[in-house]
Amino acid sequence: MTKLFVMGMGPGDLGLVAPNATKALDICTDWVAYGYYLELLGELSQGKTFHDLPLGEEIGRARLALTLAAKGKPTALISSGDIGIYAMATLVFELLDQQLQGNENHPEWLDVEIEVIPGISAMQAGASRVGASLGHDFCTVSLSDLLTPWETIDKRIHAAGAGDFVISFYNPVSKKRDWQLNHARDVLLQYRPANTPVMIGRQLTRPDEEITITTLGELDANAVDMFTMVTVGNSESKHIVNKDQHWLYTPRGYSKKL
Amino acid sequence: MTKLFVMGMGPGDLGLVAPNATKALDICTDWVAYGYYLELLGELSQGKTFHDLPLGEEIGRARLALTLAAKGKPTALISSGDIGIYAMATLVFELLDQQLQGNENHPEWLDVEIEVIPGISAMQAGASRVGASLGHDFCTVSLSDLLTPWETIDKRIHAAGAGDFVISFYNPVSKKRDWQLNHARDVLLQYRPANTPVMIGRQLTRPDEEITITTLGELDANAVDMFTMVTVGNSESKHIVNKDQHWLYTPRGYSKKL
Repeated sequence: MTKLFVMGMGPGDLGLVAPNATKALDICTDWVAYGYYLELLGELSQGKTFHDLPLGEEIGRARLALTLAAKGKPTALISSGDIGIYAMATLVFELLDQQLQGNENHPEWLDVEIEVIPGISAMQAGASRVGASLGHDFCTVSLSDLLTPWETIDKRIHAAGAGDFVISFYNPVSKKRDWQLNHARDVLLQYRPANTPVMIGRQLTRPDEEITITTLGELDANAVDMFTMVTVGNSESKHIVNKDQHWLYTPRGYSKKL
Repeated sequence: MTKLFVMGMGPGDLGLVAPNATKALDICTDWVAYGYYLELLGELSQGKTFHDLPLGEEIGRARLALTLAAKGKPTALISSGDIGIYAMATLVFELLDQQLQGNENHPEWLDVEIEVIPGISAMQAGASRVGASLGHDFCTVSLSDLLTPWETIDKRIHAAGAGDFVISFYNPVSKKRDWQLNHARDVLLQYRPANTPVMIGRQLTRPDEEITITTLGELDANAVDMFTMVTVGNSESKHIVNKDQHWLYTPRGYSKKL
């Protein structure tokens, strides 16, 4: 019996990787990840066996990680961000559940000890770079309809609007999807003003980071790609400028007491 | 001009503190925090000047941090979790905004260089300890009505229910508040089944951690205190048991492809 570490490596800056994650990487002989993330870990990765499965092979990656660990190899299943947020952790437990129900033929998976190590998610990296965009109740919505019916996503955008939540959109666009983000904008415009501030953060905390603060009315999917996080403020969020430094914050309500 | 670091120290386990945060603590001469968090940082804190303002004096803490930094002292404003999530970061920018508007008399605050360093929030610590409770779209709602009208909170609980979001409740109860969590439970029972799994996580990642997985129908504010995070699954979340190990995961939808 050995251990499977299921871990998120944060947005990119190695200075945001939890020491527990770094320690686990060191213990593990086998690293399973999408290659791009392995590149980010460059200097840490000497002497490790890489299992680099491409985007789209998430199920294969989770199966392989469980199987390697069951064979006695200390294994790390790695994602960027927080592996518990729109990433691979849930798939490990979905596979475990299938095995418990007898729908898989891998009883050895049930002997694997699993430890999940959280990481800094893109919404948090974005919030920190612009100040405090997530300063009050917020939600996350993935705009990818690969696994989730569009009706469910649309319902959630409406609910997020009705609840006046700050919203972070994950998977805002892809090569094949470009209309969902503009649709989401149009839905939210039914609930909050066009001048609501929006953060567009690309390659957050990485060397080629680009951050723009715009408004909900001006938000356009053409300014967004797969490496981008979009956070829409709530009806009270503010964009302020101090000496050329732009900040976006969502007040908690202290101003009544100031 | 010197620097103010606005930083979250994660849920408690020092192995989850970002290296960037540890490095910033080391640079700073002055640490501003609620004393309980300073205790958690014990071994790191030698030779530092503590500014330990009690709970309830959040505004005083943010003012002091800006003022110390403006005086040339490298200063850390510290919270547990992620300082951008229900914590002090937003207050720093609210004060900056007030100064920009001329409602404060501290022009020196505008010269302070501010860097926000994110941390692992309680919802993430909880998710990692039970598996993958945040595996699909989720939201956070603070049940504290000290700064937010109860009508707004109630509206958000309804919206979270209507959107079938996984929900993490921050500030679920306090010494003076005990009915809000049970009210939230009753609202959510209008939208999702009584057997929806719920995580109750107390003192997450700390030596006296206690975690219970229960159901929405059984959730009771009596089992919850100020050191507790409550996460309610969505209508598809599952509680599974493998060899006495309990897990709570929210599927992303891969099962259709398994």
